[in-house]
Amino acid sequence: MITLFRYNWIVRDEWFELCKQIPNKELLHKRVGGTGSILYTFFHIIDVEYSWIRGIQGKPDIQVQFEEYESLQQVKQLSDSWRNETHEFLNSWTSEFEKEVVTVPWTDEHYTKGEILRHVIAHEIHHMGQLSIWIREFGLQPVSANVIGRGLFKNNVPQTH
Amino acid sequence: MITLFRYNWIVRDEWFELCKQIPNKELLHKRVGGTGSILYTFFHIIDVEYSWIRGIQGKPDIQVQFEEYESLQQVKQLSDSWRNETHEFLNSWTSEFEKEVVTVPWTDEHYTKGEILRHVIAHEIHHMGQLSIWIREFGLQPVSANVIGRGLFKNNVPQTH
Repeated sequence: MITLFRYNWIVRDEWFELCKQIPNKELLHKRVGGTGSILYTFFHIIDVEYSWIRGIQGKPDIQVQFEEYESLQQVKQLSDSWRNETHEFLNSWTSEFEKEVVTVPWTDEHYTKGEILRHVIAHEIHHMGQLSIWIREFGLQPVSANVIGRGLFKNNVPQTH
Repeated sequence: MITLFRYNWIVRDEWFELCKQIPNKELLHKRVGGTGSILYTFFHIIDVEYSWIRGIQGKPDIQVQFEEYESLQQVKQLSDSWRNETHEFLNSWTSEFEKEVVTVPWTDEHYTKGEILRHVIAHEIHHMGQLSIWIREFGLQPVSANVIGRGLFKNNVPQTH
């Protein structure tokens, strides 16, 4: 599971790098479908990941407003700063967590921790797929969605990044 | 891991159902980005999944031509027929397979079986994200990408479907 988080982060950073070529106005441009804009897509996946990871740990949710992060650089900084905590949590993950049931502040539903991790992983991949369509408008080649060929499984030991 | 295959199959079937509302001509219509068309996206994810799953097992690749599957019904039938073999293989999966290294007929690279499973999972989620943008053109609401809320983790035992 943790490998797919690392995959998402590598892909996310490649997308940040690619999107440096796009004017901020275009990153904020309202598009049909998805979360509505390229920049908001980044903000959304970062916010969703962090909220669930804090929720799993029984920590209160941190509310952030997109209006305060309306540049690529600001969103990237948010991503970097929150990732450390998530990384630390994932490093402490053991298979016993899989079936532990938790509730989170924004719903009365009960979920297992394993279910939440998978939800967060799929959530980001899904939204990156949307970016891969929008990016064509700028004549750019999207970031590869390949899991293979990224050195993620070298020596088969988890690596920090 | 296997749960995310089940997730992909449930989502795929919901997409098949949704796309029944779209004329075949539109499903074949050449679009910018992704694999080029809605129908070819389905064909591609099914083909890629089956090829890797057979490759993992050391079985020869089966070549199929899209020209023989140019309706939603035909592609859905292909999906259904190949899924049984994949399902059977995944049911035999144990954690020992994770680090076993294999080669497949179409590349000289070496991959672990665990790496391949994750690649196949992410591949489909990525392409479904692309469909979620294209589908808006028809005024339709895309299939939910949520992993939670699908009963996938009920009683925490793998279920056939």
